[in-house]
Amino acid sequence: MFNGNVIVGQSGGPTAVINSSLAGVYTAAKKAGAEKVYGMKYGIEGLIKNDIVDLDTKIKDPENLEILRRTPSSYLGSCRYRLPAEEVGKEIYEAIFANLAEHNITAMLYIGGNDSMDTIAKLHSYAAKIGSDIKFVGVPKSIDNDLPGTDHTPGFGSAAKYLGAVTKEIICDATVYDMKSVTVVEIMGRDAGWLTAATALSKGEDCDGPDMILLPERILDLDKLISKIELLQETKKSLTITVSEGVKVADGRYLCELAGDEKRKDAFGHHMLSGTAQFLADTINRRVGCKTRGVELNTPQRAAAHLLSKTDFDEAFMVGAVAAEAAIKGKTGEMAAFVREKDAAGNYKVDIKTVAISVVANKEQIVPNEYITAEGDNVTQAFINYARPLIEGYVEPIWKDGMPVVLKR
Amino acid sequence: MFNGNVIVGQSGGPTAVINSSLAGVYTAAKKAGAEKVYGMKYGIEGLIKNDIVDLDTKIKDPENLEILRRTPSSYLGSCRYRLPAEEVGKEIYEAIFANLAEHNITAMLYIGGNDSMDTIAKLHSYAAKIGSDIKFVGVPKSIDNDLPGTDHTPGFGSAAKYLGAVTKEIICDATVYDMKSVTVVEIMGRDAGWLTAATALSKGEDCDGPDMILLPERILDLDKLISKIELLQETKKSLTITVSEGVKVADGRYLCELAGDEKRKDAFGHHMLSGTAQFLADTINRRVGCKTRGVELNTPQRAAAHLLSKTDFDEAFMVGAVAAEAAIKGKTGEMAAFVREKDAAGNYKVDIKTVAISVVANKEQIVPNEYITAEGDNVTQAFINYARPLIEGYVEPIWKDGMPVVLKR
Repeated sequence: MFNGNVIVGQSGGPTAVINSSLAGVYTAAKKAGAEKVYGMKYGIEGLIKNDIVDLDTKIKDPENLEILRRTPSSYLGSCRYRLPAEEVGKEIYEAIFANLAEHNITAMLYIGGNDSMDTIAKLHSYAAKIGSDIKFVGVPKSIDNDLPGTDHTPGFGSAAKYLGAVTKEIICDATVYDMKSVTVVEIMGRDAGWLTAATALSKGEDCDGPDMILLPERILDLDKLISKIELLQETKKSLTITVSEGVKVADGRYLCELAGDEKRKDAFGHHMLSGTAQFLADTINRRVGCKTRGVELNTPQRAAAHLLSKTDFDEAFMVGAVAAEAAIKGKTGEMAAFVREKDAAGNYKVDIKTVAISVVANKEQIVPNEYITAEGDNVTQAFINYARPLIEGYVEPIWKDGMPVVLKR
Repeated sequence: MFNGNVIVGQSGGPTAVINSSLAGVYTAAKKAGAEKVYGMKYGIEGLIKNDIVDLDTKIKDPENLEILRRTPSSYLGSCRYRLPAEEVGKEIYEAIFANLAEHNITAMLYIGGNDSMDTIAKLHSYAAKIGSDIKFVGVPKSIDNDLPGTDHTPGFGSAAKYLGAVTKEIICDATVYDMKSVTVVEIMGRDAGWLTAATALSKGEDCDGPDMILLPERILDLDKLISKIELLQETKKSLTITVSEGVKVADGRYLCELAGDEKRKDAFGHHMLSGTAQFLADTINRRVGCKTRGVELNTPQRAAAHLLSKTDFDEAFMVGAVAAEAAIKGKTGEMAAFVREKDAAGNYKVDIKTVAISVVANKEQIVPNEYITAEGDNVTQAFINYARPLIEGYVEPIWKDGMPVVLKR
């Protein structure tokens, strides 16, 4: 029987299934005999401040758990806080371990992306140094699918399903008038183009899919783009182009920076990568002369819990459960990860193992060359084969008064 | 038995259920004994050019019909063409009536908004003048809910359901960090604020709903807005404001025009009403000093067939069917319209009648005063009571390979 309590936190940008992972951690920890499963509020910042919550007070019955799984955004709150190095942040580490001890916590799970795994790596290292027995295991999460060490990330499948469905709807909408037009759809993902690639999932017998898919893995040549649009419009009036917010031109600037809009920096002087679609639409309008429209899809890409992939929803739960079990059984300094396998009939199935956190922390997995066409403006069938199983299945919301229900914080 | 053929067209901006109305027209016309049901391609422009399609070649079985009903955007294509006055466009009217005669068409249905109903009014008037027996009946459609003569418009319920659900998701997302923030969500609707009002449907036991709702029916006072934000943030860190793209300030300018961005005019010099959310977010950031984010929801507001209201979906079909039956039975110069009634238990139900086209054509219904709070920055319970029944029920997409299926054009 497991001796001690468990704590779990969520960090970084949310996904539509990050709370399914939270539910998986909770369920597995309870099953393993944890008396208490605590949640840190607003990620590691909550643990530092000892701002934690007993999850039993929030998850009171099985229906609560099902609603939690369908609640978008990090239920416990999130942060973008990066632990300082031990040498300069000793008092922070001491506070964390004092708070863990106070609540008799012997296993900590942290649900996050590559930056968040840095937190697991640092706490694992500090624990080893001070001889603490507390286990630290990461649970992957990212709509961006940019974590190494795992076949894919929980959150990507639902975002991909949403983007495929919405792209198909936008293509239906864009072809409604009998005139030449180009619709440019801007997709999240600064350095890795997985989400933009996923718009290709709209393609099928009933839909052409995007006519071009512009990934940050390829430099954009505006002249070439304009020529290709003119070529395609000889046989097809309405074109749809999906473009990553992180696409750059040859001189290294982001496409949206070409608009020369200096206001588009955030409070830290970072370039805010919005306006890519509008800039590209304006440019095409000016140079090709046809009607254009720029569309940003914004927050729903990471929050559309009303259109989940069942595969993603279930895998997110399982990866949380496996991570909790691993920590409880004594693993530490690792992250749970997906391994793609085939069942007896040759169909997709997934196994979950753990990988050393060093494989993941602070690293990024971009779209590989074999998933991008030679021309660099679309994806290959190999990508479709990779992504299709991740969007299979559907999870109906729990409804009240015509609205999907979420778990109140 | 009905003698003759029927033609149907779609006009103006699409909705998520405009093809459910098309399916309703088709089904009722077939049932009434029409040998052929034709569709005009790209609205009345297709009829002028004699570019029409026999719908039996597209709708081959009941499954096709069900897929058509779930296909967003105008399946037949659309136009924004306005018929000229008879005096100056005689040859156009002659072409239309020649093409109708050629196909032995005795009833024409036109699915559209207030501008499109002008087409019905003009053709009805011309028919009377030349002694034609052809019947012209309109089928309402508008996400904007801005048609007089009907309790609500088909398309509004699904757009409202989508906006309620997505607003709730955005509110979950916006409250994830432990810091003061304001999220501004921009909603379609230039002159009538029905869609922006519908974001209030997110409110329930599990969600506060938007903290402010800014409708085009009220002049925006920026100073008052900033003061209210500062007041609200004394007790609540993360605020969400929904704003219509058509909101104006006291001097008559659209809010987005204050950005002074002269590029934001379309090819005809019309102000393009985008950038309202970003401008407001930038202004709040500058004056309040907290983190802000501007979110545009774009095309999915009129095309999210993956999240339909069953009430809307069914009513859209019925209103198409009733309009077709009315035309076949000899009514002309009318539009089918919803009348709100109560069943024996006091619950919402709808009746469909026809109203004179003159009530509707070129007119606009804005949000009435009783649906707007005295402070002018939110909606009343009376609005919720009005809108809630329209978003009830859910229509699951028909799936293939993890994607909603649409009917190929």
